Amino acid sequence: MKDFQLIVNFKTYDNATGNNALELAKIHEKVAQETGVGIAIAVQAVDLRHVAEEVSIPVLAQHFDFVRNGVHTGHVTAQALKDSGAYGTLLNHAERRIDLDDIEESVDLARQLGLFTIVCADTPYTGKAVAALNPHMVAVEPPELIGGDVSVCTANPQILMDAVAMIDNAPVVIGAGIKTKEDVAHAIKHGASAVLVASGVIRSMDPEQTLRELAQGVIEGQKGAVEHTL
Amino acid sequence: MKDFQLIVNFKTYDNATGNNALELAKIHEKVAQETGVGIAIAVQAVDLRHVAEEVSIPVLAQHFDFVRNGVHTGHVTAQALKDSGAYGTLLNHAERRIDLDDIEESVDLARQLGLFTIVCADTPYTGKAVAALNPHMVAVEPPELIGGDVSVCTANPQILMDAVAMIDNAPVVIGAGIKTKEDVAHAIKHGASAVLVASGVIRSMDPEQTLRELAQGVIEGQKGAVEHTL
Amino acid sequence: MKDFQLIVNFKTYDNATGNNALELAKIHEKVAQETGVGIAIAVQAVDLRHVAEEVSIPVLAQHFDFVRNGVHTGHVTAQALKDSGAYGTLLNHAERRIDLDDIEESVDLARQLGLFTIVCADTPYTGKAVAALNPHMVAVEPPELIGGDVSVCTANPQILMDAVAMIDNAPVVIGAGIKTKEDVAHAIKHGASAVLVASGVIRSMDPEQTLRELAQGVIEGQKGAVEHTL
Amino acid sequence: MKDFQLIVNFKTYDNATGNNALELAKIHEKVAQETGVGIAIAVQAVDLRHVAEEVSIPVLAQHFDFVRNGVHTGHVTAQALKDSGAYGTLLNHAERRIDLDDIEESVDLARQLGLFTIVCADTPYTGKAVAALNPHMVAVEPPELIGGDVSVCTANPQILMDAVAMIDNAPVVIGAGIKTKEDVAHAIKHGASAVLVASGVIRSMDPEQTLRELAQGVIEGQKGAVEHTL
Repeated sequence: MKDFQLIVNFKTYDNATGNNALELAKIHEKVAQETGVGIAIAVQAVDLRHVAEEVSIPVLAQHFDFVRNGVHTGHVTAQALKDSGAYGTLLNHAERRIDLDDIEESVDLARQLGLFTIVCADTPYTGKAVAALNPHMVAVEPPELIGGDVSVCTANPQILMDAVAMIDNAPVVIGAGIKTKEDVAHAIKHGASAVLVASGVIRSMDPEQTLRELAQGVIEGQKGAVEHTL
Repeated sequence: MKDFQLIVNFKTYDNATGNNALELAKIHEKVAQETGVGIAIAVQAVDLRHVAEEVSIPVLAQHFDFVRNGVHTGHVTAQALKDSGAYGTLLNHAERRIDLDDIEESVDLARQLGLFTIVCADTPYTGKAVAALNPHMVAVEPPELIGGDVSVCTANPQILMDAVAMIDNAPVVIGAGIKTKEDVAHAIKHGASAVLVASGVIRSMDPEQTLRELAQGVIEGQKGAVEHTL
Repeated sequence: MKDFQLIVNFKTYDNATGNNALELAKIHEKVAQETGVGIAIAVQAVDLRHVAEEVSIPVLAQHFDFVRNGVHTGHVTAQALKDSGAYGTLLNHAERRIDLDDIEESVDLARQLGLFTIVCADTPYTGKAVAALNPHMVAVEPPELIGGDVSVCTANPQILMDAVAMIDNAPVVIGAGIKTKEDVAHAIKHGASAVLVASGVIRSMDPEQTLRELAQGVIEGQKGAVEHTL
Repeated sequence: MKDFQLIVNFKTYDNATGNNALELAKIHEKVAQETGVGIAIAVQAVDLRHVAEEVSIPVLAQHFDFVRNGVHTGHVTAQALKDSGAYGTLLNHAERRIDLDDIEESVDLARQLGLFTIVCADTPYTGKAVAALNPHMVAVEPPELIGGDVSVCTANPQILMDAVAMIDNAPVVIGAGIKTKEDVAHAIKHGASAVLVASGVIRSMDPEQTLRELAQGVIEGQKGAVEHTL
């Protein structure tokens, strides 16, 4: 299993789509290699294959549809993800909710195919709920802060504390509005296994520089976590 | 504008996904080249790019989500289709309905990007309805016959007649259960501009042979249509 | 068939729900009786029966689900509407879109049960599209103006002109942001058969007075239309 | 808080809609009074008020939409339920799934309004997940058995055992295919707080007689549970 502490969601930004996705992916790979911090990226379905073929960091889908082999049109199957070289997938992102039973079945199907699953939730409570379905990671993101200027770490640090305390059977990812080294360091120091970012990197004037700072935040957070433990 | 009389929907069949999609696409290209009949294929989003890069026939998406540049996760954008080399897309397939306003906006957006649109409908009436939104083609497929053993041409030939009579501003595609040369010839002879097939080819024991027969149906139907006109 | 020129959508406003719905409905009935202008109201499903039992004006549902007798939970059936005494229903409101095939089937089912249907659409084009499915009325409401301060008549009077010109097989209703007598008079004068309002009445400080003014707008619009015709 | 051991879902059956719903509700009230077994019924939104006004047993909605006061059309609000006299509601039934965040918010809103919530789930795992959101009851119903001829108690008694073992913070309701006294007795004996039935009663030739038998099953199950405990 690959290890990563930063997950960057490319969403549907035009500058993170198609050939732009590939260029941006290579920047992520470069920063991961140079800093030693694990970085995973989540790209549009159309871009999975050509990105996964070209970079060595984990490439995730943003979603798949729980349909199997057969008579479905316009859906993205887990089998297609697997065949593309994707490492795994986000599921139930605030911008792509699926129902609870589909989360259960999707997580099970992904596991059968060897796909890594990160299931998103709005709150510590719903995070605990999805953790009952045994995904590889649970990402808690208060939707009102996603894409905003105030990070979840600043607006309400208790959310991370609660999530880490309540979710005892899966590593916790935290996200929403995270843009700075300090946010990342704070999150990692207080028990987050990884941090989920999107606009903070994708809409940055200099994504490479921003990524380096966030990676530095991971390193500082891990030191803090160690000191915290000692 | 490329011309085609057969549209083959790969759906989410595992044998038409991933590397299988690519192999199958090459068979379609071969039959198109050898018979001179235009064949378009509609593949999963994940497979668009690598298929479109490798074959010269029109490669369609099965759907895209009407979301623009930005904060959407797990969606397939028109921009991603365009960037992948897709020729166009199906929209509103019976297995992936979208609402009427999204059809209107999706058709408009696709046109701006130079993507060809084939909007599906259940009946001649809904076919006429979507034709009001000016897609490139309108495909009428009674959903109760899709994937079945009896073709729309056999079960109810009046559907095609009505669709051709009622839809006067777009070429009409007919589909649902079409599997034989005779079905295709009948449809083309009676005014269909193209025929939409899926399981008839994808689940065939010998897709290449089946495709050749359907292509022969196109040729016979076109002769019939000419005689019909004379 | 009952005749009405004003349709007031109670939406889910708390002051138009439950016993409040009943009180408000009686005000509508009073204004209809005193002005001679036909007024229909559209209420929440839960309120249909007790409102329909108590007032003589047409009471509409805001939506029904296209499911039939049987194994569906949490849906509102056409049969339930009929049994409640509802006169008919809105369908496909911008806040409750249904897909095109469901519009077709819902309109057909409503007709079988003797329920009046007003199908909503965003634009003249989608209005023309739904008109192909033969509802009793087509309501065109640009969603970006719904609930806003600028009415469709002020913001873009061409929308009504286009809708009336393009939709030749059903009476046209116009709506979105309509709040004043002048808006209503303008709409009726230029070919609208009725006007669809919501917040303009429901959120008014004095709904009865507002309704009287809108009814006066109908009367003035009808005179204008007559003069226009002479 | 009212106590009940049988919950009968009227679904959208025509013979359980409108005036038929009222008649059927009175039969349920009669059996409840005569047997002393608590019976709750879940009716269509349109029927809530007139049924709740006429019977003394708890009347539940089958669903509500998580929208608040305001600009929503065609939705059923919690406020409307409350105003109608409903005791509470089912949520997330297999035939009306809502997403996890809506479950959380709907449960919270219902609690604020004093409405009782029974959240449905497919499996013990998803049952445990929804239990994290603190509804009043959790109902586990394997969807493949709903409406079928084999009850969950017969097909897989382990499901109830697992649900009772895994869900430790809410009473467990069990359902799917339950039609006989023996099924009910078994369920109650093995830890179910209540049993959810639908077609077993509604499609019965003699609903009153069937209800009496199911009520007898509750009584026998409770004795069995007592003996089991001793």
